[in-house]
Amino acid sequence: MDDGVCVLPLLGLPEVRTGDDLSALLLAAASRAPVHGLRDGDVLVVTHKIVAKAEGCAIDLRTVEPSAFARAIAARWDKDARQVEVVLRESARIVRMDRGVLICETRHGYVCANAGVDRSNAGAPETVLTLPRDPDASARAIRAAAARIARVQIAVIIADTFGRPWRAGLTNVALGCAGLRPLRDERGHADAHGYVLGVSVLAVADELCAAAELVMGKLRGVPAAVVRGYAYEPGEGSAREILRAPETDMFR
Amino acid sequence: MDDGVCVLPLLGLPEVRTGDDLSALLLAAASRAPVHGLRDGDVLVVTHKIVAKAEGCAIDLRTVEPSAFARAIAARWDKDARQVEVVLRESARIVRMDRGVLICETRHGYVCANAGVDRSNAGAPETVLTLPRDPDASARAIRAAAARIARVQIAVIIADTFGRPWRAGLTNVALGCAGLRPLRDERGHADAHGYVLGVSVLAVADELCAAAELVMGKLRGVPAAVVRGYAYEPGEGSAREILRAPETDMFR
Repeated sequence: MDDGVCVLPLLGLPEVRTGDDLSALLLAAASRAPVHGLRDGDVLVVTHKIVAKAEGCAIDLRTVEPSAFARAIAARWDKDARQVEVVLRESARIVRMDRGVLICETRHGYVCANAGVDRSNAGAPETVLTLPRDPDASARAIRAAAARIARVQIAVIIADTFGRPWRAGLTNVALGCAGLRPLRDERGHADAHGYVLGVSVLAVADELCAAAELVMGKLRGVPAAVVRGYAYEPGEGSAREILRAPETDMFR
Repeated sequence: MDDGVCVLPLLGLPEVRTGDDLSALLLAAASRAPVHGLRDGDVLVVTHKIVAKAEGCAIDLRTVEPSAFARAIAARWDKDARQVEVVLRESARIVRMDRGVLICETRHGYVCANAGVDRSNAGAPETVLTLPRDPDASARAIRAAAARIARVQIAVIIADTFGRPWRAGLTNVALGCAGLRPLRDERGHADAHGYVLGVSVLAVADELCAAAELVMGKLRGVPAAVVRGYAYEPGEGSAREILRAPETDMFR
């Protein structure tokens, strides 16, 4: 790591469609420049959107019958009632609802705007994408394919861009992971003056996603990137470890 | 950027003390491997802690007289009343206060635990460090020194690791910046299917800090890193742009 960490875009991925073999597409793109083939220890960060497309998470809004609640929200805030209906179906809990913004806890436990339901880059008009059903499983499948086909041991993270309280702008964060421990725990270690570090648990999976976003981006059409040279802690890993326990969450 | 982005640690920085010429120390460390000298377009990310030390933000707790309020909080939650007093002095507003945790808005407008007051790596026993007074100004000074002494046009970000609601673990975020626009605004652009992106403002300054953290870390004792190859949008820049406007903040 003293020689640094590199973040490389996966270029030349085709438009992903339902039923595509996403692992094969990713491995083919990774075989080309600038990645030149995956290596042991690489972290492959994949935007959730191509995972959701491959897994058939696109919903044609023309097939959605909005509930009375969805219609009421949509009428008040000038939204598409069918899209609001999908958001409500994807939500386990509404965390805040104000000025037309819905901050939802998804069935996975993530808290984000609109339960992650999004219309941009959904692949077709009148269509929204939900988050993948089980992003950890999606990550495990790609990791297993890399081991089987390319004979490399890598870590895989499925990412999305989330907003956050207090700070403007979105950052890329982890929804699912495989092959690495998403948190780096420095607690119990002492600093150079013997002071024991109290709360130093770093969300490295989220930091890896943020680093990857620097070469990705919705407009550039680059939906995946490789982080090379980061000595992550290997492990089965699950992005559920990044969910804050309710008893330590002061903003439920 | 199609060739990727690299993150390089600044190695060999000495322990920073009050009154040190931090810019000179950073430039000397950057002249060595693995950075091999700063280049135009580099982003230098510096942990706030060495900035605060150089600027004399260390407070000897033996000189602090806690208020009755600080003493009451400390007694109830088994904390150091003098340290609680410093936290209160650094706070413009208490956002949440529960189970011994103080989530504060600092005088700069940042929301974080304990107003950023920290005892780890403070440089001496019985000592806490506050955040730098004006992190944008600190970043501007380092950027100006790089232009004057090393003849390079770089961007500089002053960073700290903050917790966040809903997600476990800390991530590195920007407290001050100079030379780059901290937000990348993709609104108004259309995706490949003509759908206009609605809320796509990316907090790139925070993502650059997160990327830098991958080679930094409290235990490794690496307080700065260079991100090379990221085509940021040049601008005077201020981390205040990352402060969410109160009217869009649902978690005040």
